[in-house]
Amino acid sequence: MPTLGIFGGDEVAKMLVQAASTLNIDTLIFARHAAAPALKVSPQHLIGQWDDEAALVQFAQRCDVITCESRAVGANALAKIEAMGTTVFPSSATLVQAGDLLDQKRHLEGAGIDLPRYKKILVGSDVLEASVEFGFPLLLKARTDSDKRALIRRAHDIEPALQMLEGHALIAEALTNFVRELVVTITRNSAGEVRNYPVVEMTRHNQRPHIIKCPAAIDESTAYLATEMAIKAVQAVGGVGTFGIELFEMPDNQVVFNELFAHPHAAGHYTIEGVITSQFENHVRAVMGLPLGDVAQIAPAAAMVTLIGEQTGTPNDNPLQEALAVGGTHCHIYGKAQVVPGELMGHITALGYNADGAEKVARLALSKVRL
Amino acid sequence: MPTLGIFGGDEVAKMLVQAASTLNIDTLIFARHAAAPALKVSPQHLIGQWDDEAALVQFAQRCDVITCESRAVGANALAKIEAMGTTVFPSSATLVQAGDLLDQKRHLEGAGIDLPRYKKILVGSDVLEASVEFGFPLLLKARTDSDKRALIRRAHDIEPALQMLEGHALIAEALTNFVRELVVTITRNSAGEVRNYPVVEMTRHNQRPHIIKCPAAIDESTAYLATEMAIKAVQAVGGVGTFGIELFEMPDNQVVFNELFAHPHAAGHYTIEGVITSQFENHVRAVMGLPLGDVAQIAPAAAMVTLIGEQTGTPNDNPLQEALAVGGTHCHIYGKAQVVPGELMGHITALGYNADGAEKVARLALSKVRL
Repeated sequence: MPTLGIFGGDEVAKMLVQAASTLNIDTLIFARHAAAPALKVSPQHLIGQWDDEAALVQFAQRCDVITCESRAVGANALAKIEAMGTTVFPSSATLVQAGDLLDQKRHLEGAGIDLPRYKKILVGSDVLEASVEFGFPLLLKARTDSDKRALIRRAHDIEPALQMLEGHALIAEALTNFVRELVVTITRNSAGEVRNYPVVEMTRHNQRPHIIKCPAAIDESTAYLATEMAIKAVQAVGGVGTFGIELFEMPDNQVVFNELFAHPHAAGHYTIEGVITSQFENHVRAVMGLPLGDVAQIAPAAAMVTLIGEQTGTPNDNPLQEALAVGGTHCHIYGKAQVVPGELMGHITALGYNADGAEKVARLALSKVRL
Repeated sequence: MPTLGIFGGDEVAKMLVQAASTLNIDTLIFARHAAAPALKVSPQHLIGQWDDEAALVQFAQRCDVITCESRAVGANALAKIEAMGTTVFPSSATLVQAGDLLDQKRHLEGAGIDLPRYKKILVGSDVLEASVEFGFPLLLKARTDSDKRALIRRAHDIEPALQMLEGHALIAEALTNFVRELVVTITRNSAGEVRNYPVVEMTRHNQRPHIIKCPAAIDESTAYLATEMAIKAVQAVGGVGTFGIELFEMPDNQVVFNELFAHPHAAGHYTIEGVITSQFENHVRAVMGLPLGDVAQIAPAAAMVTLIGEQTGTPNDNPLQEALAVGGTHCHIYGKAQVVPGELMGHITALGYNADGAEKVARLALSKVRL
């Protein structure tokens, strides 16, 4: 059987394995720790560090195609796999262009995509300089993991933010005066064929993706601009696989680029039940060289809420006893070994005739989860 | 984490594991051979014979609840597990009443359900006697595995049929002059709560379930009678879990009982994409004591076609290369190690505005599968 290797063992890997198994594509998870959720659904796995050369050789030899659930693996490991002759999608070249946020912004600007202002941060005074250039508030992000971020509202937020983000290369971004945050999920295969999922609206909680509404309550023209920009960005990095592109809708209904994620984005998890072919199945299809699937919505609307860890602790064995009684929802618990504040622990999707109604149902179920 | 044990490692077990993993319920597969498809999605497993006492003790100790994907395990093994204090659903008592087709018919007749005529078969002359009583054609079935069956059209079909079914306890059934074969999927929990899925029409190919249309093109009153009869049958055997009930629609629109399956039936596999809560998720919920889920259809109609093995052989590594290009379908390949004539190897589901249209799409995709 063809085997798909996946760097990473968290929820995206788990949902990729589920999609692959339905198509009878074997998977091999290369996780960094033995308690990774994806290991519960994928008997074949390696556990180790991604810079361990011997493990990379073994991984490359046992897989036909290798992909990654996040950019955490880095372009170097992917390049080593490619040098051994195993196909990698997204490729190391894509990760070189998209994996580091500073490189991504430079590359996409070069491709003609307009971006909000940004500044490379080396020391604290750079943040202060950025605040002079862009004004407050601004966003400080780790360049290779933008989930690690801090909102800087005033000068004395800078020091605690730098401490929290210590050890990461940083970038500062001007905060745009947006109306809505939008996400477009795009799947592209190696022949350049593209599938664009509906444009969704994303609302954050503590900076983490929290509420997804599909479709976003935007004009057709805004949806067109958002989709066009997302496709252009994926093409600009030669992306193969499923990508999440975060955008801002501005008060004049124009769209401003935010960030490209070279892997399935949390804002697309609703596609498992909300769209004919989920972002995970289409990722598997794209990287394995199979025809891409239909991305039409199954119902007029869908909403998804994420379950975000609040206090560190051991998860409850039976978190859904009450939540499952709420009809019409699809509950996903990722199976992480620990509850970690700010970490996505699961999500709940509901379909409906309008996204607001679906959101209410999903939120009601969420309120009954006992994590 | 709570662990659900499953006797059996074929496609029903695989789809139960997929449903359980989304809810973060761990599974442990007790399969009879190492190439069972469910082992690809469930790292925890035992491989051995179901009458091996030591293996049963280990299985019972490692699981919180145990279920089975078919009746092949038999009531004895379930009773042994129960005696060790581990919950089993459906229970051994249900399997005593429903697992053997002769016992099932006697039990359901006692519960007031009308059945077509049947006869216990010990020797060849019993079949001839049945043909005198019921007339030809009649159906000869293995009492504990009604997939093993032969249609007897005339006296000289009897000998080859008996040879084919050698080693099985047999029953002969009068063949009713039905208009349609109907299947109702029912989930019932231990509190007696019931969810009834839409009544579907099933068409067979070589006696195997082949085409499922949801909803069946029947009157509301026929659907009501079918559902009522199916629920009555599940209640009569004290069933907990998801059950498939085969019925016949007669020319006068009345419904005649055929057979109850004490496990998720192939006719319900379309529920993964066609209904809010699939028959597998509801089975997991029912046996784990969780609230049952919504069984409303997601689209006005759905159709499913099964992929039935034709010639013995090794499956193609890439059977879906062409089939996946047909838009709007959901392809499932179970991952069986061998193609076996008459064996279900996968299925394809399509949703649509009407079941005939959905069936065309699913059949088109099926015609492109290269097994």
